[in-house]
Amino acid sequence: MALTERVQQILSWYGSDNPGVRANLARMLSTGTLAGTGKMVILPVDQGFEHGPARSFQPNPAGYDPEYHVKLAIDSGCNAYAAPLGFLEAVADRYAGQIPLILKLNNSDTLAKLDQPISAVTGSVRDALRLGCAAIGFTIYPGSGQRNRMYEDLRDLIAEAKAVGLPMVLWAYPRGAGISKDGETAVDVCAYAAQLSAQLGAHVIKVKPPKNFIEQAEARKVFEKYGIKTETLEDRVRHVVQSAFNGTRIIIFSGGEAKGTSEVLEEVRGLAAGGAFGSIMGRNAFQRPNAEAITLLRDVMAVFKG
Amino acid sequence: MALTERVQQILSWYGSDNPGVRANLARMLSTGTLAGTGKMVILPVDQGFEHGPARSFQPNPAGYDPEYHVKLAIDSGCNAYAAPLGFLEAVADRYAGQIPLILKLNNSDTLAKLDQPISAVTGSVRDALRLGCAAIGFTIYPGSGQRNRMYEDLRDLIAEAKAVGLPMVLWAYPRGAGISKDGETAVDVCAYAAQLSAQLGAHVIKVKPPKNFIEQAEARKVFEKYGIKTETLEDRVRHVVQSAFNGTRIIIFSGGEAKGTSEVLEEVRGLAAGGAFGSIMGRNAFQRPNAEAITLLRDVMAVFKG
Amino acid sequence: MALTERVQQILSWYGSDNPGVRANLARMLSTGTLAGTGKMVILPVDQGFEHGPARSFQPNPAGYDPEYHVKLAIDSGCNAYAAPLGFLEAVADRYAGQIPLILKLNNSDTLAKLDQPISAVTGSVRDALRLGCAAIGFTIYPGSGQRNRMYEDLRDLIAEAKAVGLPMVLWAYPRGAGISKDGETAVDVCAYAAQLSAQLGAHVIKVKPPKNFIEQAEARKVFEKYGIKTETLEDRVRHVVQSAFNGTRIIIFSGGEAKGTSEVLEEVRGLAAGGAFGSIMGRNAFQRPNAEAITLLRDVMAVFKG
Amino acid sequence: MALTERVQQILSWYGSDNPGVRANLARMLSTGTLAGTGKMVILPVDQGFEHGPARSFQPNPAGYDPEYHVKLAIDSGCNAYAAPLGFLEAVADRYAGQIPLILKLNNSDTLAKLDQPISAVTGSVRDALRLGCAAIGFTIYPGSGQRNRMYEDLRDLIAEAKAVGLPMVLWAYPRGAGISKDGETAVDVCAYAAQLSAQLGAHVIKVKPPKNFIEQAEARKVFEKYGIKTETLEDRVRHVVQSAFNGTRIIIFSGGEAKGTSEVLEEVRGLAAGGAFGSIMGRNAFQRPNAEAITLLRDVMAVFKG
Amino acid sequence: MALTERVQQILSWYGSDNPGVRANLARMLSTGTLAGTGKMVILPVDQGFEHGPARSFQPNPAGYDPEYHVKLAIDSGCNAYAAPLGFLEAVADRYAGQIPLILKLNNSDTLAKLDQPISAVTGSVRDALRLGCAAIGFTIYPGSGQRNRMYEDLRDLIAEAKAVGLPMVLWAYPRGAGISKDGETAVDVCAYAAQLSAQLGAHVIKVKPPKNFIEQAEARKVFEKYGIKTETLEDRVRHVVQSAFNGTRIIIFSGGEAKGTSEVLEEVRGLAAGGAFGSIMGRNAFQRPNAEAITLLRDVMAVFKG
Repeated sequence: MALTERVQQILSWYGSDNPGVRANLARMLSTGTLAGTGKMVILPVDQGFEHGPARSFQPNPAGYDPEYHVKLAIDSGCNAYAAPLGFLEAVADRYAGQIPLILKLNNSDTLAKLDQPISAVTGSVRDALRLGCAAIGFTIYPGSGQRNRMYEDLRDLIAEAKAVGLPMVLWAYPRGAGISKDGETAVDVCAYAAQLSAQLGAHVIKVKPPKNFIEQAEARKVFEKYGIKTETLEDRVRHVVQSAFNGTRIIIFSGGEAKGTSEVLEEVRGLAAGGAFGSIMGRNAFQRPNAEAITLLRDVMAVFKG
Repeated sequence: MALTERVQQILSWYGSDNPGVRANLARMLSTGTLAGTGKMVILPVDQGFEHGPARSFQPNPAGYDPEYHVKLAIDSGCNAYAAPLGFLEAVADRYAGQIPLILKLNNSDTLAKLDQPISAVTGSVRDALRLGCAAIGFTIYPGSGQRNRMYEDLRDLIAEAKAVGLPMVLWAYPRGAGISKDGETAVDVCAYAAQLSAQLGAHVIKVKPPKNFIEQAEARKVFEKYGIKTETLEDRVRHVVQSAFNGTRIIIFSGGEAKGTSEVLEEVRGLAAGGAFGSIMGRNAFQRPNAEAITLLRDVMAVFKG
Repeated sequence: MALTERVQQILSWYGSDNPGVRANLARMLSTGTLAGTGKMVILPVDQGFEHGPARSFQPNPAGYDPEYHVKLAIDSGCNAYAAPLGFLEAVADRYAGQIPLILKLNNSDTLAKLDQPISAVTGSVRDALRLGCAAIGFTIYPGSGQRNRMYEDLRDLIAEAKAVGLPMVLWAYPRGAGISKDGETAVDVCAYAAQLSAQLGAHVIKVKPPKNFIEQAEARKVFEKYGIKTETLEDRVRHVVQSAFNGTRIIIFSGGEAKGTSEVLEEVRGLAAGGAFGSIMGRNAFQRPNAEAITLLRDVMAVFKG
Repeated sequence: MALTERVQQILSWYGSDNPGVRANLARMLSTGTLAGTGKMVILPVDQGFEHGPARSFQPNPAGYDPEYHVKLAIDSGCNAYAAPLGFLEAVADRYAGQIPLILKLNNSDTLAKLDQPISAVTGSVRDALRLGCAAIGFTIYPGSGQRNRMYEDLRDLIAEAKAVGLPMVLWAYPRGAGISKDGETAVDVCAYAAQLSAQLGAHVIKVKPPKNFIEQAEARKVFEKYGIKTETLEDRVRHVVQSAFNGTRIIIFSGGEAKGTSEVLEEVRGLAAGGAFGSIMGRNAFQRPNAEAITLLRDVMAVFKG
Repeated sequence: MALTERVQQILSWYGSDNPGVRANLARMLSTGTLAGTGKMVILPVDQGFEHGPARSFQPNPAGYDPEYHVKLAIDSGCNAYAAPLGFLEAVADRYAGQIPLILKLNNSDTLAKLDQPISAVTGSVRDALRLGCAAIGFTIYPGSGQRNRMYEDLRDLIAEAKAVGLPMVLWAYPRGAGISKDGETAVDVCAYAAQLSAQLGAHVIKVKPPKNFIEQAEARKVFEKYGIKTETLEDRVRHVVQSAFNGTRIIIFSGGEAKGTSEVLEEVRGLAAGGAFGSIMGRNAFQRPNAEAITLLRDVMAVFKG
């Protein structure tokens, strides 16, 4: 499989990483409908852990079965499928080699509420290796008083993963006592989260679509002084992408809560126009009936394909 | 010993695990009265640690002696016997090979009360190996502010155990500041606990029989919108089993406090009808006189045998 | 040296332990005046650490010198001598092989008061090995909010010690926010402490003589319902011994504060009648003039010898 | 490359370090415009992590690109370039050998506020080695209640780095509950920070320019009694340099917030007159247009060159 | 170099230690003016870390230079020189073999105040080895709520040091929430600190000169009942020395704050009369002009020489 020029260009940004890491990045960028385009759509299914089974799977009960999701990712032409340990163990033996797997290494449930949110580390780099994964995933909550613990866990996992050729896909979700509820998706905060992720050594960065709101007073002065545009989603995404090392780190955006098809596609068009490398789309995919989900995911990919 | 088709089917769900883990699962599924049926009844005796000796053993003082319990498990045809380090060390040398042993690796006493409950880790995977155990056991308290510590201890133990061929039997008992007293056995919470256990990589999951109560507001909306049935124990167990990877993880239910024989059997019939893989029955067994306990356990097994 | 039948019987209860552990148990059971009887009297001298030098040694100033105590233990025919690191290092080179030494691995001073008491770990299994000790000692405070940390330190030390052939002598002293001052010596609490110690894997268990008081409401119901006798010390000791795996773990009792000779012997007669395996007697021994101490210890041994 | 006498003299102060550490110190002292003079100007770019991307890079948007900074450091003739993991990984493969790199091993963001400030450790000595760095950097906050954790992390990193030949550049920024806002740059506190850094084993020490203010009452008495001069920046810098082992540790000063060119140069003249070994200048450099930044940095170097 | 009889006698008290530890004790006891007498005077210079540079060194500015102190120790005939990592690294290469060095492994600054005081561990046993030290030093604060952490750090360091032949010099300074300000130098508390240090395995113990005050109510009863004399410094020192294993551990006393020459010598005479093994004298030495300091130190040694 020869790599496309675009994929080679992207890999050139990760020149300090070893060939193993770059080979796995290439694997993800060369899989599915978007293979070779430099764009990515990933199916993530950690909601059973994060929100509970009924809220996650009852809208489309086929999703109670772990096999459903990996098949959906394959059938719809996703670049990769991401899930916690249990969901991957349930399918890795039968689907080895059919789609790049991303083991999400930390997770949080909603049965206890912590003032300073932090996810539990629930898997390891060795788990990712034994299950044949192409990458590991991790979530940080900048804004939480426990962020240092998360950054330090991340540092250890990134170092271990890089040494064995596994890239890190980092979910950067600001939340916690340090920021307001609106601030969680503020454009300055999303951009800051992207910058932090890149500085921490992530290979693929996932943030939420930024809203037209600025959280930090010090940042607001700068946005106003230099006229950084934030009116349209495209504007805001452009700033966030720029904040990820001037667009030299793969940065993708989440879909968030389930919503209507036209809304989803409208948002994706804004993301693509702003320079996003792709989407990570969970509930909007697996909570729809199978055929509808496949259609939607393909429509999303078509937008990114341009 | 050829495995039955049902046992082979169950083992196929654990295809990402090594042969050692599956061999030990097969050992437990091929022992005792329920051998080969895919059902399990386990005798657990950790109450001396958890509630103290008099409350646990005075109703049937033979139980002060550790040898009593392993013999009861063998004589009644249980699939396995589970206990903390001390109780297993007291018998492992003489009963090696006579029944699969499960070393419970964490335990909690009632002499101190913690706001955020957490058990102490009191044994190790190496202990399980040197005592010839077939599995390890662990308890998590989802809902406790200390749950992350428990999940992370669990992750380390599961990883270590899987590498040496030992399955994990996980007690998932929601409790702590995050949920109400009724919520500890709410159907949504039990189902969530089952999902968490499966995502965390447990091989056998033990939860409490779910009550007709829904704890979480967000979950209640979904139960109502999609008409998830919760009136009968059978309904509720079905939902919990579905939440354990659509029934592809062994999930068994505890008996809880001592009660009358007809009550016990009534409950077990509900569990069996809902698709439970079996029961784990402690106080209802060892606090009865020996002959009565053996009769009850055999009656329970008969229900599961169908 | 052939072992007596009683010692062989006791060793048979520890059949899951390796020959090294059993050899050291045999050493302690085959030393001194009570050699071969299955009974033990141990001299423990950790009071310098726990209460300070003047309070401990001024009543008999010879005791400021570490050599005094090991000689007292030998001269009076004790089974073993237990002390913290410093006291053992001060004598181990000259008294190697003359009496089994027990290295107390954690200790607490009274210069700071913690709400949730916990001892510092002040020695290691390797220290015990290099000093030629026959066992290690450890203290737990069930009832303290810090008990989990102590149980987990204990688990690590027990595992390490068992692997190198050293038995664990466990001081189980309930205290802390979870129980009342009277509850520290309540019969239900002492029995619970004995059960916990046995479940945690201790070889020799040391508790305080139980008083005729029941701390826990749930336990009181059981004591009343089943008529567990608690009037005499003999009754209460019998329940505590039963709670240590039905008498199949060596369980000995402390003497506590210094008191009159007749009081000491009266208490020891109660302990012996209830089935205690012996006493651990510190201040009542070393704070008396030497000759008087030797006489008292020999009188105590005579009671246990029966 | 023969070392100048001055560089050899400086290296002689580090005689207890191994040749690897001294070779890397020599590398930094023999690079750029100030090569051989014993003076250093370092470009540090950690503001994207510490203050966010817009506040850091929007004034000169070329700075969103990590490549911009390493080129600026080279083009302006800096002795070294310091940045967090991500920024160095983005350029280390292409700029290996062109300028000494310093990996900043801990960083802090402004999305969460901690009462007792502490940075997260976000990189490792192994990262520094694999990226071909000449040194590692670390930040301590004397005055924070968490300072012990930082000093202990530092000790481990220094020990590891020294063993593999990497010097430690220590940012010593007093802050936290122990000192007032003004006290953060008080002359007694800056001098104390320099002393602490030297005692902790740092090779290059970076503090803020001291203000004419004395924070600690006990120190004030001494300053008054012995007439330590603090009126001019030169006076204060002299005391701080003296506090770094009488000037036998390389001590450089930060530029702080962006300000006018004449202000910057005025300050640098004071630093140089007081015996500073150089400056570390970030925002005042990379937030200016490229040509202006190069001019300023060269002017700064000219001052130190004298 | 043949050891004197007195030195041989002292070494005999440390018979459980390996030859390496005893050789280094012998080195310290056989160096300087007091060589062979069994007495020790040590120069400690950690005040730059503990109190800041100006307060420590401005009274005699030569002391800003690390070389000053090691020369003072040599020139005055001290047995050893003790300092933190930085100060020793600054001189170890040039003064190797000229005087025994003691690396102080933990230190505390006064820029932050902790309710429960604890020093940071700032050096390691490996540092002591690579710098050619004869011993390590450590400080404990009995009375602090953090004392367990300090005792446990100490245990690890002592174990590591003993294995490689390095003795432990322990600074035992009671302070913290558990005791009053006066209590920090109370005779019962000093004696208790000496006992704790010995029990923890220290080879050389350093406490403050005890005052005629009794802190603990329980101790006061004993002091009164048995008539322990506390009127003169000689009386109190005798009790403290007795509390260090009846005088079989080397115990020396600090000089504390700078004071007049006659006061210093008066105090030293009291210490010597009570059986102290020597003094550790910092500020009273290095804050005096060089010649005066040498004279004072020699006068102090003359007192101990008797």
